[in-house]
Amino acid sequence: MKAVCLLSGGLDSATCLAHARRSGFECYALSFDYGQRHRVELEAARRIAAALGARDHRVAKIDLRVFGHSALTDEIAVPKDRDEAAMSSGIPITYVPARNTIFLSFALAWAEVLEANDIYIGVNALDYSGYPDCRPEFIHAFEHMGNLATKSAVEGRTRIHIRAPLIELSKAEIVRLAVELNVPLELTHSCYDPDASGRACGACDSCLLRAKGFREAGMADPACA
Amino acid sequence: MKAVCLLSGGLDSATCLAHARRSGFECYALSFDYGQRHRVELEAARRIAAALGARDHRVAKIDLRVFGHSALTDEIAVPKDRDEAAMSSGIPITYVPARNTIFLSFALAWAEVLEANDIYIGVNALDYSGYPDCRPEFIHAFEHMGNLATKSAVEGRTRIHIRAPLIELSKAEIVRLAVELNVPLELTHSCYDPDASGRACGACDSCLLRAKGFREAGMADPACA
Repeated sequence: MKAVCLLSGGLDSATCLAHARRSGFECYALSFDYGQRHRVELEAARRIAAALGARDHRVAKIDLRVFGHSALTDEIAVPKDRDEAAMSSGIPITYVPARNTIFLSFALAWAEVLEANDIYIGVNALDYSGYPDCRPEFIHAFEHMGNLATKSAVEGRTRIHIRAPLIELSKAEIVRLAVELNVPLELTHSCYDPDASGRACGACDSCLLRAKGFREAGMADPACA
Repeated sequence: MKAVCLLSGGLDSATCLAHARRSGFECYALSFDYGQRHRVELEAARRIAAALGARDHRVAKIDLRVFGHSALTDEIAVPKDRDEAAMSSGIPITYVPARNTIFLSFALAWAEVLEANDIYIGVNALDYSGYPDCRPEFIHAFEHMGNLATKSAVEGRTRIHIRAPLIELSKAEIVRLAVELNVPLELTHSCYDPDASGRACGACDSCLLRAKGFREAGMADPACA
């Protein structure tokens, strides 16, 4: 059984890949080079894919900067040191328009080529992420659309399932699941704004949520050793 | 009123752009450089966007070859001189996995940045195209998903409509509509496999359907002058 696994190199997607592996899938990991300022995550993705025994790992180069408009790709400053109230109010400026739609569309293309039925995505609807394309209703709508979009689905050779096993978990629960699944946490990279050497800033929303997750799970973060 | 208009440089998408313009939209044309063998269409798209008064035209560079598997991007030969029965049986090898899903996803991203409600796509379900992602049920499912995918839709600032005005038209009807809308037909380019100078092959499915459309509309094709 083959599965395409979206892999950013962060804690969530690495845990998701490990989950797919433990569920018995032969995993085809897919990352994107989209001009993100945190490009160190692509190197992290490569190492994680190897460590978790992905069958293949590809990096699709796509141009999300053509439309501008996000702190993850633009020269807008990444917000730092926000409190929980600020993080949970509204949709953050780090939102990239239609990003998960685009990522899932590429995963759908690869799934069709592989004749895979399953696509894993490490989205998470809790913990103030505030991204519309991380919610269950979005995932279900994409799955429905995906089964009308491809030759293999229309011909009955595939039946796409979008699997988002972390969608209802808190960050602390994800940390615990990652430990249980032997995710190489020291390789994962979550920071939106690392320094030139790839060190996490410790202050962006993603760093703060990660730190909170480890704290609540009662664990030290091996990536901060 | 702004609309994002997918524009390949072919007859259908040019007609679609002209339709959007006549409907009063300020049009933002979007093309893709995806390693297609018929790259001359990008130059055609540029000229058509200018001729039809698009407000902006962008070309997003994306890598569809990362997964291989289509005569439009690979070194697989484009089928030639097929009869209507062959063209109408099954899904052709020129099918690019999930292509319209990927294109519409990018259009959705740009629509969000522009706060546009409307996306035009020149798909056509008739005339043997055989592509699953050209059918009305696919378009409706994408529209539903798109309204759950973006910050602007979730916040109620946009309401996405995927407009496919050619979807139920025959090729002859599209030719007649193009003439009525003053589409610069001589600039449009439909061939899957042009020669080095950009001349249409006259034998691929796309050329044959175009020729049939002009013949049935009782017109000479200005692009063949």
